[in-house]
Amino acid sequence: MPVSLGELAVRFGCELRGDPDTRIERVATLAAASADAGALSFLANPRYRAQLSTTHAAAVVLSGADAAACRTAMLVCANPYATYARIATLLYPTAPLVPGVHPSAVVAASAHIDPSARVGALASVGEGVRVGPRVLVGPHCNLEEDVALAADVQLAARVTLGRGVVIGARTVVQPGVVIGGDGFGFAAADGGWVKVPQLGTVQIGADVEIGANTTIDRGAIDDTVIEDGVKLDNLIMVGHNTRIGAHTVIAGCTGISGSATIGKRCVIGGAVGIAGHISIADDVVITGYSAISHSIALAGVYSSTLPAEEAQVWRRLVARFKRGDALGARVRRLERAAGLAPAPHDEPHD
Amino acid sequence: MPVSLGELAVRFGCELRGDPDTRIERVATLAAASADAGALSFLANPRYRAQLSTTHAAAVVLSGADAAACRTAMLVCANPYATYARIATLLYPTAPLVPGVHPSAVVAASAHIDPSARVGALASVGEGVRVGPRVLVGPHCNLEEDVALAADVQLAARVTLGRGVVIGARTVVQPGVVIGGDGFGFAAADGGWVKVPQLGTVQIGADVEIGANTTIDRGAIDDTVIEDGVKLDNLIMVGHNTRIGAHTVIAGCTGISGSATIGKRCVIGGAVGIAGHISIADDVVITGYSAISHSIALAGVYSSTLPAEEAQVWRRLVARFKRGDALGARVRRLERAAGLAPAPHDEPHD
Amino acid sequence: MPVSLGELAVRFGCELRGDPDTRIERVATLAAASADAGALSFLANPRYRAQLSTTHAAAVVLSGADAAACRTAMLVCANPYATYARIATLLYPTAPLVPGVHPSAVVAASAHIDPSARVGALASVGEGVRVGPRVLVGPHCNLEEDVALAADVQLAARVTLGRGVVIGARTVVQPGVVIGGDGFGFAAADGGWVKVPQLGTVQIGADVEIGANTTIDRGAIDDTVIEDGVKLDNLIMVGHNTRIGAHTVIAGCTGISGSATIGKRCVIGGAVGIAGHISIADDVVITGYSAISHSIALAGVYSSTLPAEEAQVWRRLVARFKRGDALGARVRRLERAAGLAPAPHDEPHD
Repeated sequence: MPVSLGELAVRFGCELRGDPDTRIERVATLAAASADAGALSFLANPRYRAQLSTTHAAAVVLSGADAAACRTAMLVCANPYATYARIATLLYPTAPLVPGVHPSAVVAASAHIDPSARVGALASVGEGVRVGPRVLVGPHCNLEEDVALAADVQLAARVTLGRGVVIGARTVVQPGVVIGGDGFGFAAADGGWVKVPQLGTVQIGADVEIGANTTIDRGAIDDTVIEDGVKLDNLIMVGHNTRIGAHTVIAGCTGISGSATIGKRCVIGGAVGIAGHISIADDVVITGYSAISHSIALAGVYSSTLPAEEAQVWRRLVARFKRGDALGARVRRLERAAGLAPAPHDEPHD
Repeated sequence: MPVSLGELAVRFGCELRGDPDTRIERVATLAAASADAGALSFLANPRYRAQLSTTHAAAVVLSGADAAACRTAMLVCANPYATYARIATLLYPTAPLVPGVHPSAVVAASAHIDPSARVGALASVGEGVRVGPRVLVGPHCNLEEDVALAADVQLAARVTLGRGVVIGARTVVQPGVVIGGDGFGFAAADGGWVKVPQLGTVQIGADVEIGANTTIDRGAIDDTVIEDGVKLDNLIMVGHNTRIGAHTVIAGCTGISGSATIGKRCVIGGAVGIAGHISIADDVVITGYSAISHSIALAGVYSSTLPAEEAQVWRRLVARFKRGDALGARVRRLERAAGLAPAPHDEPHD
Repeated sequence: MPVSLGELAVRFGCELRGDPDTRIERVATLAAASADAGALSFLANPRYRAQLSTTHAAAVVLSGADAAACRTAMLVCANPYATYARIATLLYPTAPLVPGVHPSAVVAASAHIDPSARVGALASVGEGVRVGPRVLVGPHCNLEEDVALAADVQLAARVTLGRGVVIGARTVVQPGVVIGGDGFGFAAADGGWVKVPQLGTVQIGADVEIGANTTIDRGAIDDTVIEDGVKLDNLIMVGHNTRIGAHTVIAGCTGISGSATIGKRCVIGGAVGIAGHISIADDVVITGYSAISHSIALAGVYSSTLPAEEAQVWRRLVARFKRGDALGARVRRLERAAGLAPAPHDEPHD
């Protein structure tokens, strides 16, 4: 679906520098664009700025601040990454959904499938399920009873939705996701554990994205809630009764214990661990590989990331950390020798 | 299935304070219970104690120590969480299993399915599999040859059990779980890796629970073993030849390398990393987000959790940690200036 | 498939110490081998060396350095683990593949399945897919359009391959793996997020192994690339546009953010976090549970593993770490009192 640079400039509100008749046929990275085709590239990460002077792209989407460094035609705009995303969506339209239920799918008699929706090969749909307009239930999905999918939901493939799970419009779920497995609730008794029935379900808002093999557990009593616009990466664990606020983004491998409340518009890095029963304010940023064991009341950036070192250096640092007492004792000895009174921040509990 | 408060008190051995004819119809959290229905709530986590004075629950299950703070009818008992769990199980009975094999399931000729068991839609059952009484093999499960499931096992949906996996009575497996994938065994040779055949299988005890998308690998020679009553949360990795002792509980995202031996009744937090070939004693507690790189011989609580800080503060702490040498050198200089002999814990190796 | 010790020695180039007619029927660990059968064991991990004097194995594969400690017949060789792996592969041949498409599988008209390949029960194969000679597409796999599998690929069961994914010869994929889910790309705009189309695919080389429930995302523009001989354990997250160099091994629960480039022959421990857009050199070793937030330019061993301590000790260490300022201030006070000039490594920014 080729389009002229001029048309893109008009349609997406960019300042065009270059020939408006340049034909754009595809997108490419700055590094990989080759000169013989109408490749559009973009610059959003300053890490790749030097590539502006060497790229063979036909045109580049970038911000005004980067324009001087660029040797090609340009679409200059305030938010190059979002503009690139919109142009790429135009250039690469998704294949139209073929409505209907694949003959190999198993659909319960009381399920309601909108005629414009698609149910893929070897999917199963339980009693009382409601599938809205233009929904894709991909191959191998299984929807247990009373699941409800709003318009334009896309379950890519092999997604499991437990009893009563509700998903809002346009939400996209990648393969392998499990929503509505039992929460992890056990009461200690008699030297073992009694299972606590997990009676709630999961409510997913509109415009959410959920990455491959992520799991979101059903609530123990009330529901687990993912608000509108939340983006979850792969292999994330969301415990029961957690609430994630609108437009929060969470990177892969992060684990969120039960009954945590996470604010709106947070940005949470990968492999973060969030303890149960805590609250995180709106607009909190957490760097990857941090442990959040207490509530965070104020917006801001938080971290306990420990960047790796050469291993011998690291082992020495850890050894010193673990015998930290020694240095404190030596300072106390020096203070005594110098006749200095204990400092106000002395360490009386050590 | 409504029941009177008096009947609950008798049945579960609680002291009743309030009207025994109070009708209990459902459960609710202290915060969400509304006054117009027979909601039973409970208090187990002291964090929610203040809600006792504001709840609209019809009655609350709690311990004697909390009774004075409560404004509603009460069921007073020694273990409110376990008592709540048992009452909720009574109030919300699971739907009875409909025995039989769904016509879309694929069952090998030599598999034995107990007539009281259920095999769901689009499940597959391999040669030589034995499925015991009242077992649920949920939709989309696949059981490879010679799997054996004892009575009352529940495979919720889309569970994969590899060749020869054995599961004990009443064990519950959540969707997406893989038990019996190959262990991660490769021998370095000729600049690459030779695969070590993974010849063992996995033995899962009775009354175990396994959370969504958790993986348990088959043993290399001997079997991987999960003992009775173990509870595993979501997205846990259990490496080959690991043994997890009875009634141990492990929270989500924890990774256990191969050939680790974990004791009985341990409580292991989320996102913990446990190295291979180590032993952990019975009754060990490990806080979430800790790294266990050595064996633990004694019961107790262990941790290397680093709670996050505001990021600027954190970066300063890490910078100081990494140049720790400087402070040690300054103390040595002071000791020399003061004519003090090196302290017994001096740091000669730095 | 019993075989004599003499034949094994010849076939695998070992020095035989013991009776060449000893019949080897199976493998066993040093500890579990029983005297009444022809069990072959091996010693590769020095941790188990003491078992050489107590084992009841018929013979042991080991290195010359360990031979003196062994009481049984021996196959002495330079690389006992690899030799054991090869012997075990010989003793336990995998069942021959039964070619053909299971009648319950759903195969698109334009898919090409080599007549020597097998497509298992309830698998689905999309339009344009090419399945090479002797490939196993296990039960419940789903291959979306234009997937290409080279000769002898094994998809154990329930593997999802997205549109256009390419897999090289002999690669083995464990159950639950998702290759080609959308990468995690969103551009901030208007208080929410715009999805960036994920237009690339995933290229997997030859002789790769991918563990259960691991996810590998498709590239945003260019492809995500896993080179030949890479071994990935379970529950690993590989972000979009990542490249992993040949023969690199990565243990379970590790997360790799997008656009990371990892060198050849690296060995990366479990639960490691690797930031996006960084490069790691060839032959880098990273210890388990480390955070890699910057590029690593030189081969070597890197770590930020913090081994756990008894929790009370740990809390004291963390408390001291966090008030590290105090000790620095006390040393400054001592330096002033002693009339010492600030040390060259003083901490002016604190």
